[in-house]
Amino acid sequence: MAGAFIAVEGVDGSGKSGVVRALVAGLQARGLDVLGTREPGGTPQGEALRGLLLAGADEAWEPRAELLLMTAARVQHIARVVLPAVAAGRIVVSDRYAGSTLAYQGAGRGMDAGLIRDLHAAMVDDVWPDLTLVLDIDPAVGLARSRKRLADGGIDEGRFESLALPFHQRIRASFLAQAVAAPERHAVIDASGTPEAVRAAALAAVEAALKI
Amino acid sequence: MAGAFIAVEGVDGSGKSGVVRALVAGLQARGLDVLGTREPGGTPQGEALRGLLLAGADEAWEPRAELLLMTAARVQHIARVVLPAVAAGRIVVSDRYAGSTLAYQGAGRGMDAGLIRDLHAAMVDDVWPDLTLVLDIDPAVGLARSRKRLADGGIDEGRFESLALPFHQRIRASFLAQAVAAPERHAVIDASGTPEAVRAAALAAVEAALKI
Repeated sequence: MAGAFIAVEGVDGSGKSGVVRALVAGLQARGLDVLGTREPGGTPQGEALRGLLLAGADEAWEPRAELLLMTAARVQHIARVVLPAVAAGRIVVSDRYAGSTLAYQGAGRGMDAGLIRDLHAAMVDDVWPDLTLVLDIDPAVGLARSRKRLADGGIDEGRFESLALPFHQRIRASFLAQAVAAPERHAVIDASGTPEAVRAAALAAVEAALKI
Repeated sequence: MAGAFIAVEGVDGSGKSGVVRALVAGLQARGLDVLGTREPGGTPQGEALRGLLLAGADEAWEPRAELLLMTAARVQHIARVVLPAVAAGRIVVSDRYAGSTLAYQGAGRGMDAGLIRDLHAAMVDDVWPDLTLVLDIDPAVGLARSRKRLADGGIDEGRFESLALPFHQRIRASFLAQAVAAPERHAVIDASGTPEAVRAAALAAVEAALKI
């Protein structure tokens, strides 16, 4: 079968990582060749950039520099991992992609969306996933989940978790607006239910989109 | 007196670092408040990016990713070091700036110059130095100097030193073309002479431009 590129997006605490793992396992169980990956990251260079981005304080990087680093990691990821895998017939499932840049750097940080889209077109050849799952949840609930995860000894990979609720409400609204603007390549999943219910809904949406 | 932003550009082995040191010392000797800096680098974040860029093999980064990282380091450098220092009346002397991106990523790697200029305009507000010194030398001579420096135990900070001579000839031609296109903010210095002669010529060009 033909390969496909699937991204999983959502606010912090929406359950993206668990959904990615469930999608990889669920699609592999159907005999498909699946690659789980993430952004920023997914290549040695991208993971190094992820380390630089997440290591510092929220103010360590200028918003424009943050945008450029996210895009640099994406260039490496698309050219060296995602496109070769899809061309080889694999299903690539990425924890975040360019929708997160529109949401966080655009709606969150207040950078111009046109600038972000132009940069994506020029540097990533305007590659968008065949399907983007938006895990939709009230950010207050998502942040409470994230903070519980931290309190339970999880790794703090989210600088954004320290930012105020209105920031996260803008993120949520951006993901929903992206889905509305391009419904043919988005599916919005209610992420307020149990992890099992959310993961099942995500897998069903992927199976419907891939017609499997 | 008003601050100023001066960049020193040139092919590998053209003597940039020594010229920057001589300019800083020579201008300080005249009682000026001078800051010597470099690109990529000049901020903690930019120096970290410099480490990532210079640590790997020449093929570690996609050309577009390399361009984005250079620009990200420049965003940090301009916003947090160069513009504040110039606004405070200081003379900033930078070892490389955006001219190197046009030369290395553009003429060298073959990326579109319009794309690089658009990125510079969008991300760095099209900030150009008041004066750019182009240290002009036959790249074959410059590379021989660089290789001697390496053989003498110097640090290999130039991934580009491993590339073939035609690459470096394109770099030289780009710097000269940039000077021809904007003569009011460039000075071309013959860098084939002794280090003392080159440094004296560079200092004289800066003094003429600053009218001091």
